[in-house]
Amino acid sequence: MDEFDVETLAEPSLSDPVLIEGLPGVGHVGKLAAEHLLEEFESEPVRRIYSEHFPPQVNVEDGRAKLACAELHAVEADGEDLLVLTGDHQPQESAGHYRLTDRLLDVATDLGVERLFALGGVPTGELIDEYDVIGAATGEEFVDDLEDTGVEFREDQPAGGIVGVSGLLLGLGERRDLDAACLMGETSGYLVDPKSARTILEVLEESIGFAVDFDSLEERADEMEEVVQKIQQMEGGQQATDDNLRYIG
Amino acid sequence: MDEFDVETLAEPSLSDPVLIEGLPGVGHVGKLAAEHLLEEFESEPVRRIYSEHFPPQVNVEDGRAKLACAELHAVEADGEDLLVLTGDHQPQESAGHYRLTDRLLDVATDLGVERLFALGGVPTGELIDEYDVIGAATGEEFVDDLEDTGVEFREDQPAGGIVGVSGLLLGLGERRDLDAACLMGETSGYLVDPKSARTILEVLEESIGFAVDFDSLEERADEMEEVVQKIQQMEGGQQATDDNLRYIG
Amino acid sequence: MDEFDVETLAEPSLSDPVLIEGLPGVGHVGKLAAEHLLEEFESEPVRRIYSEHFPPQVNVEDGRAKLACAELHAVEADGEDLLVLTGDHQPQESAGHYRLTDRLLDVATDLGVERLFALGGVPTGELIDEYDVIGAATGEEFVDDLEDTGVEFREDQPAGGIVGVSGLLLGLGERRDLDAACLMGETSGYLVDPKSARTILEVLEESIGFAVDFDSLEERADEMEEVVQKIQQMEGGQQATDDNLRYIG
Amino acid sequence: MDEFDVETLAEPSLSDPVLIEGLPGVGHVGKLAAEHLLEEFESEPVRRIYSEHFPPQVNVEDGRAKLACAELHAVEADGEDLLVLTGDHQPQESAGHYRLTDRLLDVATDLGVERLFALGGVPTGELIDEYDVIGAATGEEFVDDLEDTGVEFREDQPAGGIVGVSGLLLGLGERRDLDAACLMGETSGYLVDPKSARTILEVLEESIGFAVDFDSLEERADEMEEVVQKIQQMEGGQQATDDNLRYIG
Repeated sequence: MDEFDVETLAEPSLSDPVLIEGLPGVGHVGKLAAEHLLEEFESEPVRRIYSEHFPPQVNVEDGRAKLACAELHAVEADGEDLLVLTGDHQPQESAGHYRLTDRLLDVATDLGVERLFALGGVPTGELIDEYDVIGAATGEEFVDDLEDTGVEFREDQPAGGIVGVSGLLLGLGERRDLDAACLMGETSGYLVDPKSARTILEVLEESIGFAVDFDSLEERADEMEEVVQKIQQMEGGQQATDDNLRYIG
Repeated sequence: MDEFDVETLAEPSLSDPVLIEGLPGVGHVGKLAAEHLLEEFESEPVRRIYSEHFPPQVNVEDGRAKLACAELHAVEADGEDLLVLTGDHQPQESAGHYRLTDRLLDVATDLGVERLFALGGVPTGELIDEYDVIGAATGEEFVDDLEDTGVEFREDQPAGGIVGVSGLLLGLGERRDLDAACLMGETSGYLVDPKSARTILEVLEESIGFAVDFDSLEERADEMEEVVQKIQQMEGGQQATDDNLRYIG
Repeated sequence: MDEFDVETLAEPSLSDPVLIEGLPGVGHVGKLAAEHLLEEFESEPVRRIYSEHFPPQVNVEDGRAKLACAELHAVEADGEDLLVLTGDHQPQESAGHYRLTDRLLDVATDLGVERLFALGGVPTGELIDEYDVIGAATGEEFVDDLEDTGVEFREDQPAGGIVGVSGLLLGLGERRDLDAACLMGETSGYLVDPKSARTILEVLEESIGFAVDFDSLEERADEMEEVVQKIQQMEGGQQATDDNLRYIG
Repeated sequence: MDEFDVETLAEPSLSDPVLIEGLPGVGHVGKLAAEHLLEEFESEPVRRIYSEHFPPQVNVEDGRAKLACAELHAVEADGEDLLVLTGDHQPQESAGHYRLTDRLLDVATDLGVERLFALGGVPTGELIDEYDVIGAATGEEFVDDLEDTGVEFREDQPAGGIVGVSGLLLGLGERRDLDAACLMGETSGYLVDPKSARTILEVLEESIGFAVDFDSLEERADEMEEVVQKIQQMEGGQQATDDNLRYIG
């Protein structure tokens, strides 16, 4: 194996495909959103990218071993072509993030991508009811378009910048003259958050032009709600806190 | 020295050799099993692999320094040719795991290997009497064969996947069309576990077709048992716990 | 992207430009000083250096993403040409520091640099009124010149040496026969320190030959003073301590 | 700068020079011993090795910056040619240790080295009066020679092997057919230990054939003794312990 090993699974014919990245991160918001698209629309795995920058690990499902990788799926969403990027891992080191993102962009642009959305969560530190979507983008025009769909572009948020593959898809995407935006659903940071995932999917619906069913995400959100309530009851009705809610999901 | 330095110690003539990996890991189960094969059958060191991905270290035995390495031994087990991989170290970093495993597979396939077993332990967190062997493999057929020998293939076990050289032997082995399986003996995770090593050797006996004597492993297991009993007596008969049993052996 | 990606923003005609480095460090002294020069004099960004050795991160300002980089600005200070290096990040690893500094020196010498000042802070561990500037340099003559401006060259200070890009600009600069000095303003180490930044700028004024207005730095210093006083009042008039002052700014 | 940068300071004519390594380590035993040879005999710096594997750092002495490096000195000890390796740093990472040691061996063998001693300390965990010298070597014959000088070669000591440049000088030295030994002075592990340094120098005296004056090491040992006694008095005459003695020197 070389530093990267790109496996071709299918060669679909795509029209102006939009890349949508949903690797693991805060509240698994991006990952939930990306996987929801794969469940709700017809999809086909197109490329797998293996790399020594991923953890040295196989996942096991029903006794079958699967090497750590990132996967690109062709998704047709109401006539719009999407390339949805999923996976279970971020790279392990600084240079690994740069190199993997660079290679991902090579593969995506070879498939015709000129526009991309990196999906993620931004932690608020508390459980609230209404979560906004915070945005960051590479170009003025793209910012304006997204503001029309309700995305908030704030003076100094997210405060610590955007770290990892999501951040570099914007940073390296801009250097390739791609239109790139990061959509970050606000989320407590304590829970896997299907509600936050829904808010960023609603932005994609409007921006790209498709409609997706949210029933399964709602069900998952209801399950999470029950978990939270049970914990609050155990705690004698106290507000759920950092300690007892850390990454339930 | 280059990134890898492969030393040739012998050029045995092997017939369909099966690679068996037993590097250090949980409960030293894989290492105990692999070393037991070297003790019980006639064996000959065939290759040594030195690498900058191992710790910068020499071991010292009777005043003689020996550079960190992995060692391949040719073992004849009742007419079956085995290549047993042993060593005292795992690589230090992500890319090191990928590159070492890749090089090991180069060396093994050059020696005719088309089938491999990675041996290890999977921690249960408690001391129990009967330990199952959990499996993961690259192909349907291999899974079926191993199920016949009593290996359990479970829906979502091991939960965290398989990390390190064992995991990558499956992941990278599959990409080379090798038949690869990982046999993981259940073990408390607190003790060097000769009993667990025996359970995976029994799977190998049936799967590969040889019979090995277990007297020395049994003796070692009895010694461990005594250690555990002494600790339990010191603790006033309490169940041995995480803290006082961490890696005795 | 390669290991480094140097973007050319302008090709100014410079006469004997002096490189001035102000990356983040103790008390943000070097960064404050460098940025003050950009504010007070006419300046133009000349080069941006992107690198996989920086954190995998974009900063976000008003919704626009900006990839981690170091930036060289051409500054004309009373007829003297300066090349001021700013940025938000130090490299992540040992080799990254060496390679980035080496590349920075390539870029700077291509632009005509033969003399450089690395700016930083040296922590004293207590809040005091008068801070000296400690120096280190590559050549006897340069040391003599700077001593005339009040820089102190002490037998064994800074005790731990100079770490990071500042240190390597001296170390690697010397190996290229550049005149290189590091000016380290004493600073408590607990606060962003505009006063300390002023002391090193005063050395630069005399050594290079320009005069800069300090009003905005003084204002910032006054604001910091107020913060410190408020904390001391909250603490019942006690001397501000390590714990409650750690990096306010 | 490349990965390594070897600076030639002198081209002495050496007869069968013996390499003696004294980089920092336990009790600074090896470093003290190597530096004592430089002080007591006529010596000349011959090579400096700079590397991105060292910390990104300059040391500062009297205001002059000196880039992290390892230094080879030609020493004439009663007619015997020594090449003494000193420095303030060990490499930062696994591969860095391998590559630096490999390069050091290139440089040393180019200068005619066929035999080397790596010097270090082995921690005993307690303050005692008589410290043995523990040895490890690459060849039977070398072991026998050193045993005659009182070096102890023990079945399983040092238990954790020999880590760092000292260990790899043996491991990689053996692969180049060099005679290599590591001499490890027993030392508490809490103190810079001039006494332990003397014990290994006494082995070198007999093995190589020279006589060195120990007055300055004895003085330093007496100073350390006083420090220990003061601490014991402060502690009410109690035995000095791990906590209050950790690396005084």
